[in-house]
Amino acid sequence: MSAERLIYLPLGGAGEVGMNAYVYGWGKPGQERLIVVDLGVTFPDMDSSPGVDLILPDIAWLVERRDRIEAVFITHAHEDHVGAVGLLWDRLRVPVHARTFTGAIARMKLDEQGASASALRIVGTWPEMIEAGPFHVSFVPISHSIPESAGLVIDTPAGRIVHSADFKIDLEPVVGERFDRDLWAEVAAPGVRALMCDSTNVFSTHEGRSESSLAPALGRMMAEAPGMVVATTFASNVARLATLARAAQDSGRQIVLLGRAMRRMVETAQECGILTSFPPVIAPEDAAELPRNRVLLLVTGSQGERRAASAQLAQGSYLGLSLKEGDTFLFSSRIIPGNERPVIRIMNLLSEKGVDVIYDEAGTYHVSGHANRPDLATFHDIIRPEVVIPMHGEHRHLREHAKLAESHGRKAVVATNGMMVDLTKGTPKVVQYVDAGRTYLDGTVLIGAMDGVVRDRIRMALNGHVTVTLVLDEDDKPLGEVWCEVEGLPAQGRSRAPLSEVLEAELTRHVTRSGRAALRDEEKLDKELSRLVKQTAMNEIGKKPEVRVVVSRLA
Amino acid sequence: MSAERLIYLPLGGAGEVGMNAYVYGWGKPGQERLIVVDLGVTFPDMDSSPGVDLILPDIAWLVERRDRIEAVFITHAHEDHVGAVGLLWDRLRVPVHARTFTGAIARMKLDEQGASASALRIVGTWPEMIEAGPFHVSFVPISHSIPESAGLVIDTPAGRIVHSADFKIDLEPVVGERFDRDLWAEVAAPGVRALMCDSTNVFSTHEGRSESSLAPALGRMMAEAPGMVVATTFASNVARLATLARAAQDSGRQIVLLGRAMRRMVETAQECGILTSFPPVIAPEDAAELPRNRVLLLVTGSQGERRAASAQLAQGSYLGLSLKEGDTFLFSSRIIPGNERPVIRIMNLLSEKGVDVIYDEAGTYHVSGHANRPDLATFHDIIRPEVVIPMHGEHRHLREHAKLAESHGRKAVVATNGMMVDLTKGTPKVVQYVDAGRTYLDGTVLIGAMDGVVRDRIRMALNGHVTVTLVLDEDDKPLGEVWCEVEGLPAQGRSRAPLSEVLEAELTRHVTRSGRAALRDEEKLDKELSRLVKQTAMNEIGKKPEVRVVVSRLA
Repeated sequence: MSAERLIYLPLGGAGEVGMNAYVYGWGKPGQERLIVVDLGVTFPDMDSSPGVDLILPDIAWLVERRDRIEAVFITHAHEDHVGAVGLLWDRLRVPVHARTFTGAIARMKLDEQGASASALRIVGTWPEMIEAGPFHVSFVPISHSIPESAGLVIDTPAGRIVHSADFKIDLEPVVGERFDRDLWAEVAAPGVRALMCDSTNVFSTHEGRSESSLAPALGRMMAEAPGMVVATTFASNVARLATLARAAQDSGRQIVLLGRAMRRMVETAQECGILTSFPPVIAPEDAAELPRNRVLLLVTGSQGERRAASAQLAQGSYLGLSLKEGDTFLFSSRIIPGNERPVIRIMNLLSEKGVDVIYDEAGTYHVSGHANRPDLATFHDIIRPEVVIPMHGEHRHLREHAKLAESHGRKAVVATNGMMVDLTKGTPKVVQYVDAGRTYLDGTVLIGAMDGVVRDRIRMALNGHVTVTLVLDEDDKPLGEVWCEVEGLPAQGRSRAPLSEVLEAELTRHVTRSGRAALRDEEKLDKELSRLVKQTAMNEIGKKPEVRVVVSRLA
Repeated sequence: MSAERLIYLPLGGAGEVGMNAYVYGWGKPGQERLIVVDLGVTFPDMDSSPGVDLILPDIAWLVERRDRIEAVFITHAHEDHVGAVGLLWDRLRVPVHARTFTGAIARMKLDEQGASASALRIVGTWPEMIEAGPFHVSFVPISHSIPESAGLVIDTPAGRIVHSADFKIDLEPVVGERFDRDLWAEVAAPGVRALMCDSTNVFSTHEGRSESSLAPALGRMMAEAPGMVVATTFASNVARLATLARAAQDSGRQIVLLGRAMRRMVETAQECGILTSFPPVIAPEDAAELPRNRVLLLVTGSQGERRAASAQLAQGSYLGLSLKEGDTFLFSSRIIPGNERPVIRIMNLLSEKGVDVIYDEAGTYHVSGHANRPDLATFHDIIRPEVVIPMHGEHRHLREHAKLAESHGRKAVVATNGMMVDLTKGTPKVVQYVDAGRTYLDGTVLIGAMDGVVRDRIRMALNGHVTVTLVLDEDDKPLGEVWCEVEGLPAQGRSRAPLSEVLEAELTRHVTRSGRAALRDEEKLDKELSRLVKQTAMNEIGKKPEVRVVVSRLA
């Protein structure tokens, strides 16, 4: 019988930025006791997942081993780390550990799904340790772009693991805990078997800047803007909200919070005692009464989200507030790759209104929450692990991060979603490939990304759709003509006659000529009519539509 | 009766980057003689135009006035300026003027559409003037990222217009004509009524760099790369191809051209005498025989195009060539906003193969073809127009460009697609709004963007599709049950029964209960069944699908 082993299995977040979910296990092969770190979501797009509401990691592997899971640990309250807790908890039903603020957000996720929040355990920080089967886990504060982020120390029978979670090296983070080099050196002192490390910014070659470095530029901008200022950023970036609020106060502006997430985040941060000096906010209707240069709107929708406050203000008005010439709209944010089109659309709508848009790619009004390349090297040097395992990144980030570690003389392994790594000792090796796909929340249903549902939608979007109906009598003789309904296709093509009529004529001709045997064979008739539709449409409009044939047979 | 006037009417390219088409007219209102500058395309995307092949300007306004159009002038051979010439020529049937290289590309476009290339007039440059009704037009060489770009001088009874076309200020463009300050000063000497000016890079605050500045970095990179080098850029950037080829020769690499556009562009440039020193290329099968560090592949697909050589090499192999660890893939290009996802996909596929990807956002291996902010100011100062009218840009670019001109004491007007500007004298004013939309090439058919075809596709993609069929006999009595076909929807929802069966049961129940009158009223029945499907689906799966109801009535 095999010896016990320590395994690492990313189910999300390794090979992508989003839907983080990492599994650690200890025990005999196939009998490991498991813990899960983070249960995040990622966001759908029209190219690959039209109509989908949210994307979650496929946790089938975990669900099959539910009796072996000790606990879930949530490192911080970003959607890509906590967003799936509510939706997936019912399938796991194990305790969920988090710090106060993260726990408050997780509680909302659980409540929204009607899941029991009794599983939630609010925990303290290092040196407090949580026992979870063979693991002892501790939350170590680390600076990021949301309060109370924590890296994890995971003590295992095979040695100590450090799971960095998302982090940056920020010595003046404005809100919350600074990066504490001494604390992390203390954590690392006994020796670290492996460091699982954030890779997001490995391609950014300069040292990261502190959140506090933004205050002067934001203050100047807010003081100089002649009209109303609207600022958008991630609602969860509580430190940024604090800096923006401070700049508003200094320039005599009152603050309005627009967007549910914005209000909720500020309230939650205040309730958790994190945001202590935030000024009282005013209601939108009160802001409308003030001179424009006495107002700052803090709004959701920095990524161009269609229904967020930003988009609504750009399109017209929102809660009675509207923008005009002389106003300033500040993106205190970076566009996440893939969101360029909707964000640029908002910029142009604002431009049409005469609003000055500030989006500075050089980062005058925004800093990243992730450690840059030199900061990653610094963190490696503090932790001094035997092995670096890059996580939280696309393949190119993981590979580059591994190369960085290797160039400093450390071992590194690239492991993407589904690759189970045996970490017990020596050089880690991939021991198994687990199915680790994506689950879609579609309306109220969870479906597999490979179920074909979304594939069919994409096909209809690309090719259009034809419904063919035909009624056959008791003797398999056609009753009337074939009927074609056309959707998402040009009304007419080459022959200038309506496409539906061209198709109906062609199909009716075919059916009329077909023998009884051909009409009786359901599958063959379906196939033949589909083929004819595609061929005729190709000839008429240069496109092969999706076809659905419905033959009604009178009994 | 009104006096004669000079009008400017953008039909594409003003308020967007793409599908350029600008109209100038002179004459009494409603009787102006017209010329058209450029007929370009833009590219579809899944978000707004799924299934569409190309996007063209809607030229209905021009077609209605075809007898008043004197000529078309094409400034250069980029797709967003020449791409629609073949598709739209048949609806205009007027002479098309272009310089040699641009003409060669336009000829291919005309040939591809079976349009007559006899309309093509190859013209010389300034001071050669082409008479076109009341206009005299001259092509003035200007540097850009494609050979033989030209700005236009358009002499009108109301004074001289300068139409910059796309340009940059490049004194050493590697291939083709340098920016000639003296020439443009000569053009401007008699006074310029209006400058229509490229706005693409108005947000780039530094002076533009010359194409020739890339040679050292590209040479170094090619010499140091240990394996095969693959470089991708726009095929039309002939100067870049020349620089890459020179770097390859210097490092002892043979060149393979991959992708139809790449081969065609090099051949055309050679035939036109523009590309004189390009080395002989080798065939893919010969490259496979060489040591890897003796090969450069020049490939299409810098924007992640799905079927281009880049994507195919990233996915597997292309014409027997494949990439592996130690090879280098260079993006000598910039990602056009909106194309991030497919380009990043290719980068990650290459990373999985162990290929080193070079994409430097700082521009070590790429320079833009458009004038930056200080270069625009320089050009304004050379041309000294009475009015600046920004073109070739989104609204935010046009507005910023107008502000730039105004800050230097010039008049400026922001005119977007469809805004007809009277330029005759004094302050230009918008005199009319013309419908200026988009036309889609969909398969082989041209359809209007607002026809609803694409809207229906998007709805099917977002909501899925249900087909309902029902047969009624001569007395409007249902024959059998209602049948539902479900596409692009989860197989089951809340009740765990198949969605189609839940829908069928619900609809059959409804039909059975309905009186004869209700079943006889076609419209009402359709509406009621659709409503029931949406309501039932919402309850089952949290989504309201698109519904098509087909009732077959036996005569």
